[in-house]
Amino acid sequence: VSEPAGNFADQLLAAAKEKGAPVVVGIDPRYDLLPEEIVSQEHMSNAARVENTIDAVLAFCTKVIQLVAPYAAAVKLNSAFFEALYWDGIETYYSLVQEAAGNGLLVIGDVKRADIGTSSERYAAAHLADPSFETLDDVVAPDAVTVNPYLGSDGVTPFIEAAKTHGKGVFVLVRTSNESADQVQGLLTADGAPVYRKVGQLVQGWAQQPGLIGPCGYSAVGAVVAATDAQAAAELREVMPNCLFLVPGYGAQGGTAETVKPCFKADGTGSFITASRSVIYAFNDPEYNAFDTWEEAVEAAARKFNKEIAALVGG
Amino acid sequence: VSEPAGNFADQLLAAAKEKGAPVVVGIDPRYDLLPEEIVSQEHMSNAARVENTIDAVLAFCTKVIQLVAPYAAAVKLNSAFFEALYWDGIETYYSLVQEAAGNGLLVIGDVKRADIGTSSERYAAAHLADPSFETLDDVVAPDAVTVNPYLGSDGVTPFIEAAKTHGKGVFVLVRTSNESADQVQGLLTADGAPVYRKVGQLVQGWAQQPGLIGPCGYSAVGAVVAATDAQAAAELREVMPNCLFLVPGYGAQGGTAETVKPCFKADGTGSFITASRSVIYAFNDPEYNAFDTWEEAVEAAARKFNKEIAALVGG
Repeated sequence: VSEPAGNFADQLLAAAKEKGAPVVVGIDPRYDLLPEEIVSQEHMSNAARVENTIDAVLAFCTKVIQLVAPYAAAVKLNSAFFEALYWDGIETYYSLVQEAAGNGLLVIGDVKRADIGTSSERYAAAHLADPSFETLDDVVAPDAVTVNPYLGSDGVTPFIEAAKTHGKGVFVLVRTSNESADQVQGLLTADGAPVYRKVGQLVQGWAQQPGLIGPCGYSAVGAVVAATDAQAAAELREVMPNCLFLVPGYGAQGGTAETVKPCFKADGTGSFITASRSVIYAFNDPEYNAFDTWEEAVEAAARKFNKEIAALVGG
Repeated sequence: VSEPAGNFADQLLAAAKEKGAPVVVGIDPRYDLLPEEIVSQEHMSNAARVENTIDAVLAFCTKVIQLVAPYAAAVKLNSAFFEALYWDGIETYYSLVQEAAGNGLLVIGDVKRADIGTSSERYAAAHLADPSFETLDDVVAPDAVTVNPYLGSDGVTPFIEAAKTHGKGVFVLVRTSNESADQVQGLLTADGAPVYRKVGQLVQGWAQQPGLIGPCGYSAVGAVVAATDAQAAAELREVMPNCLFLVPGYGAQGGTAETVKPCFKADGTGSFITASRSVIYAFNDPEYNAFDTWEEAVEAAARKFNKEIAALVGG
């Protein structure tokens, strides 16, 4: 069990400085996309056996974490892919949090949780606090999580409390990158502002609570903001001056250096760009055919991603 | 692995008929509230050991499920309390789904998930489909889950597909019972309707998709609607004629037979009322002091809950 390492926003910005760019690599393990070198090994070859799938996922993700560590400030572990492997999948998730921490990476648990009262407290305990059980004292919790705002502050407060107490971070979904995002997030409210802008205002309010804004000027409470709509991203950048944005969808989902630009302030700070498939499955992309091994392809894709965002925020 | 048993709404209504009332008992296991008879047993007595906590939770929940089975159409397992017990807690969760099914109860997984694309598909696979792994072929998934609407249809569709394919059910959060619910759900939109009403309209649209409405006239896609605001509940009852409501907050959260009444149609159908703490921790309530054992108190509370709602919908 490690000691709090100060404000999460400061930790994340320091990591970006060290790695050269504000980038996050998303880890979404899908057995059907894993390298042949892994799934051809006997104890990893039978997708119908959950133990084989888990061995393959663990081997792949462990290596990916080591490969991207020099280029990423953090990794984002997507809970859905581990839950689909049942309880042993959850054990694998926590193993990978530890692996990432050991490789000098911050870890964002992409869990998108929210509930109320003691339920939300239990979610925050599970996903942000190191276990209070003595028999799990070597288990490490993620440094930050994603949460859903639909229940209002009741659903988010226990996570924010964990951020205050344990130096952890929270990214509240404000505007997502999917096609149907506007069905709820884009509803126009009575004063003309869409719901996502109102949610952004709420998040900025939570972010400004005492004990959350670090010396860097950013809060441990940030926001998930898609870059699919440049105008909305620019608008939200103004609404939430103290929030770091976690920006999904770079690469495979169609985001480019140009589309993510409005998520940054003029000084080049304010956002962390996430790429998942375009980095971790680079070996399946013809662009990386020239590499001899899947590991080299992943490393090259991580380096390229880092350089693209570094160029964007540096210039 | 069991065969689909027809439309989920029909299954749930048939269960209510059999048990005499449309009631659901919520299972939120908290070690600090468990009966002395359980936590005093040696292998369950040390809360600092996760194994002890899990043994106690499993023993308690197994017994509660057996006690409430004659009085409840379904049990609702709250994922947060199991996630807080890490991977062995998740194994316990699936064990209890099986225990409940074996006791003739339908099971609602209160997971409040939502994500996009393959992530949402993975959540739906984990929480609604029986495992596709041959080594987990005795594992049974819940009959229905709760989901969050903030991402729009992309976040919900994989769950709805599972409902169509496997005879499962989905309850979309529309209006929650907590104090801050209106921060997002209560925002007034440009045409004067609050966000929750717009979400209710979306849910009714999803509920009407082909293959979801059963002979009973209700859809496998329902809604979570709190009864804390009678006018809103009545309004939502009209907006979603094909949706069964899962109504939280009866008992410990302050809901009474009167406050939940607007959630029902004139014919007494349309809602399932949930009570958690007031039933499963009845032995901690002075009202049940006269009973010799905690089991008798829980059974009495379940019977009373059933009778109260039966009287409400019958008259």
